[in-house]
Parts: sequence; C-alpha cells; structure tokens
Amino acid sequence: MSITHLQADIAIAAAVREATAIGVPMNIAVYDDGANMKAFVRMDGAFLGSADIAQNKARTASLFGFNTEALYEFVKPGGTSPGFDRTNGGLIVFAGGIPVHDGEGRLIGAIGVSGGAVAQDYQVAEAAITALAAGGFQEQP
Amino acid sequence: MSITHLQADIAIAAAVREATAIGVPMNIAVYDDGANMKAFVRMDGAFLGSADIAQNKARTASLFGFNTEALYEFVKPGGTSPGFDRTNGGLIVFAGGIPVHDGEGRLIGAIGVSGGAVAQDYQVAEAAITALAAGGFQEQP
Amino acid sequence: MSITHLQADIAIAAAVREATAIGVPMNIAVYDDGANMKAFVRMDGAFLGSADIAQNKARTASLFGFNTEALYEFVKPGGTSPGFDRTNGGLIVFAGGIPVHDGEGRLIGAIGVSGGAVAQDYQVAEAAITALAAGGFQEQP
Amino acid sequence: MSITHLQADIAIAAAVREATAIGVPMNIAVYDDGANMKAFVRMDGAFLGSADIAQNKARTASLFGFNTEALYEFVKPGGTSPGFDRTNGGLIVFAGGIPVHDGEGRLIGAIGVSGGAVAQDYQVAEAAITALAAGGFQEQP
Repeated sequence: MSITHLQADIAIAAAVREATAIGVPMNIAVYDDGANMKAFVRMDGAFLGSADIAQNKARTASLFGFNTEALYEFVKPGGTSPGFDRTNGGLIVFAGGIPVHDGEGRLIGAIGVSGGAVAQDYQVAEAAITALAAGGFQEQP
Repeated sequence: MSITHLQADIAIAAAVREATAIGVPMNIAVYDDGANMKAFVRMDGAFLGSADIAQNKARTASLFGFNTEALYEFVKPGGTSPGFDRTNGGLIVFAGGIPVHDGEGRLIGAIGVSGGAVAQDYQVAEAAITALAAGGFQEQP
Repeated sequence: MSITHLQADIAIAAAVREATAIGVPMNIAVYDDGANMKAFVRMDGAFLGSADIAQNKARTASLFGFNTEALYEFVKPGGTSPGFDRTNGGLIVFAGGIPVHDGEGRLIGAIGVSGGAVAQDYQVAEAAITALAAGGFQEQP
Repeated sequence: MSITHLQADIAIAAAVREATAIGVPMNIAVYDDGANMKAFVRMDGAFLGSADIAQNKARTASLFGFNTEALYEFVKPGGTSPGFDRTNGGLIVFAGGIPVHDGEGRLIGAIGVSGGAVAQDYQVAEAAITALAAGGFQEQP
C-alpha cells in the first residue's frame, strides 16, 4: 500500500491551514512508500530554497520510516554511522519529515515540511499527520 | 509576477477532473516563471515514470514560454537547432506542457501533464489552462 | 518582480569599482528571484575557483532571502539544522551573498561576490547593494 | 592570453545594442580560452531557457575554436563523428557561438548568444565580434 491522492490532499490541506495559522508560508511535500514524490506545494512567499528541503525531508522519512530528526542520532559526534546523512544522494537529519503509516502500522509514505524554524516545520508536518489520523486514514498513536 | 498557490490549485483541480473524466490517471505539475516547481500531484494509478515527464514538460514550457510540442520544430530532421532538446539538462519536445500567462500576456509559469497518450496529456493540460482563463486569471485567447 | 538588466549593470559596476579600489579582483554574480543567473563577470586576475563560489553565494541568498553568513547559524555546531548547507545541491554559508529587495521589501534577487578574504567579498557585495539603494532601486535600510 | 574583462564588456555591450536594434532580448555569454565563463547577461524578457544555450555555445566555441554551426559537420547524418555533440557534457552544434582570436590569431575565448531565431543569435554574436575587431582587440578578417 502507498499513500493515496486523497490522503495527500488531506495532508497538504491540513499543513497549509496550520502554516497559515502561524503565519509562516511553507513548502509541503508528500512522498510515497517508494520514496517518490506524490504531491507538493510551495505556498506563496515560502522560501524557494526550502522546496528542496521539504522534498528531501519527506524522501528521507519515507526511505527509513523514522522522523527525520531521529536519524541525527546516527551521525551526531560519537554516533554509530558517520556520513550516514550523505548516503542516498544526501539525507535530511533535522525535524520536519514524518513517516505516514496505515491503520495496521505499515509505512505508506511521508510528509516533509520546510520554510520556518525547525520547530515550526515540525508543527506543520504534525498537523498533517494528525489530520490523516483523525480521518481514520492512519493508526492512532 | 509568478503563478500563485491559488492558481496552481485551480489548475491541478481542473486537470484532475479532466483526467478522471477520460479515465486516465495523470501526473500534473505546475512550475513558476523561474522554472521552479510550484505544485505537483501524481494521481493514483498514474505511471510513476511519467512524473519526471510532467515536471519536465512544465519546466520546459516555463523556460521558453511555448507549448512543448512547438519546440519540436527546432529539433526535427532539418530543423534549425539539432540537439536543442538536450540543452538545459534535457527538455521535452512533445505535447503536454503549456505556458501560463497573466492578463497582460506576461509568462507567469506553466502546466505539465503526463500519463496518457500525448493527445490525452495535452487535453488535460488544456483543461487546466481553460480553468485559469475562465477564472479571469489569464488573458482570453 | 525580478531584478532587471539595468539593476544588474549598476550592481556589477559598483562592485567592480569597489574591488578595484581595494585592489582585489573579484567574481561578481547577480541572480534573480527564481535563483537563476542574471549577470556575471570575472574580473581579470580573479581566482577562477571563486567564480563558482560567487555564483553560489548569489544563488543561496536568492533561495532564502538572507545574507549567506546568516545561514551559518543553522549549521554551526549545535545549530538547528545540521547538513542544511548540503541541501539544494550545496549552499554557501559564509559572507559575500546579499539579497536584493525592491522598494516594497520584496525579494527580487541577490548579489554574490568571491575572490578575496571573506570580509572583502562582503565589502564589495555591500557596495553593490548600496549603489542600488542610492539609485532608488531598493528600499532604504 | 585570455579574453579580458574590458573585451568582455565591449562584446556584451555590442551584442546588447544589436539585440535591442532587432527587438529580440538575448542571453549573451563570454567564455575564456579555458572554456570558463568570463561574463554573462540575460536581457530583460529573454527566454530563461536560452541562458544555458548561450553559455554552452560560448563554451563549445571556446573548446574547439570553431563557430558552433561548423561542428554540425561532424555529427550530421553521414558525418565522421556521430555522438560528438554528446561529448564534454553536451555541446551545441547550431549557430550563435563564435570564437574570439587575438591580433595574432590565437584563440582567447568565445561569444555565445541565444534567445531568437538561430540567424538572429548569429547576427548578435557577430556584432560582438565586429566590435572587438573594430577596437583593435582582434585580428581583422
């Protein structure tokens, strides 16, 4: 199973609503379980350079099934896997990429958000995940 | 001026509706006047390999301000510019990419569609352009 | 809006004059708001390898709308976004790239300078920004 | 010897004047004898996608010391070197790139122009070459 067009629309709509609420225009990407782009939008006024980051956050979270910030553990000083973030053509290891699972816990894709402070990116990505869960599209936490 | 989030939403919604009507799931990309991605969606069941093509059609139409198929004139046997389609990291020179102009005729971006026969791709891209024009977002033909 | 040919000429002329005054030949790049090159010159005697850096400084400042050195905050030890400078195909996070805004504060492009010590690069880029502002092409600080 | 900043300025000024005279905004690139960019400008309204082509025309002419269209002989059907235009990361083999020689016939760089019909590109590049020759910067034909 892979994230659907409908789920991508829900995720992006929720993310756009949250980004608008906090007044920070964002780049929002949805990737599927094949680490391929399913949907994307760059909100008006969002940093152009954050598009690549949003996409790579979603790609990274989809490739490994973890929140992007969790992967920092591998590459931090003293971590087990120095250079891990340079694999796969370059990964993102700070927050804003969150995997999406279906109702049975299977990885079906990921959301990536960039355009604000890292905490804001995370908040907006979380809003997308919450909307999917509320819609019954995803397991409850 | 560059194509807006609202215009991108209108374009994609109209393209998705047309693609659904003809029963051919499509990849639909919107690029801005700087040839950067503004929005994208891969409909459920659309060819994965057509995502790159839809994006490149939109990029190509944005880079030159012409329908993608018009650029074939340059590279067809006997054309003036052999190899033109290998510039800019590779361009698409068949139908499915259409530039978007504002009410004063200025290039503001482009739509790119791929997933069906070329004529179907063109039809779906045209539906997006028509929807933008109908909304007063673009000059009338 | 995007930076114009006239603005690019003014920016480069001012940068060349400043570089000449301090006796350090420079590479000077102007990018537009789509992070595409608008104009460039490599002064006689300027380091060849600094051409890429000047261009990337302008590109980086255009992608994010900040001075390039400000972006170091994100990637410095303990910063919020480790690896940020490896996004977008590689960014520059030291001084010499400065965004250009129009009279209403909108990002219209950026200047990038490289060829001397970082402080010299910054000084020459600043001279370009000052010339644009003096010409009424940009908001006053 | 390599083309100088002054020569690049003269070449670009003459090309801009000719492009303005014929009403076709152009991308104009000057490369040195190391096939590295010396100067570039994208005139207002010039096709964004023609920037890459202008640069590659100048690069191609600098790499081989011939007008770009002359290189088509090698790759035309029946030519001696099929695929020649895919070497060096891709070359341009239609008109608009012209080498620049010094007063003793030595290759010092090249001009590349793109943005109009191929004949217009050639005309504008020729204007740059003529201006250099008139200034005594280059051998007379």
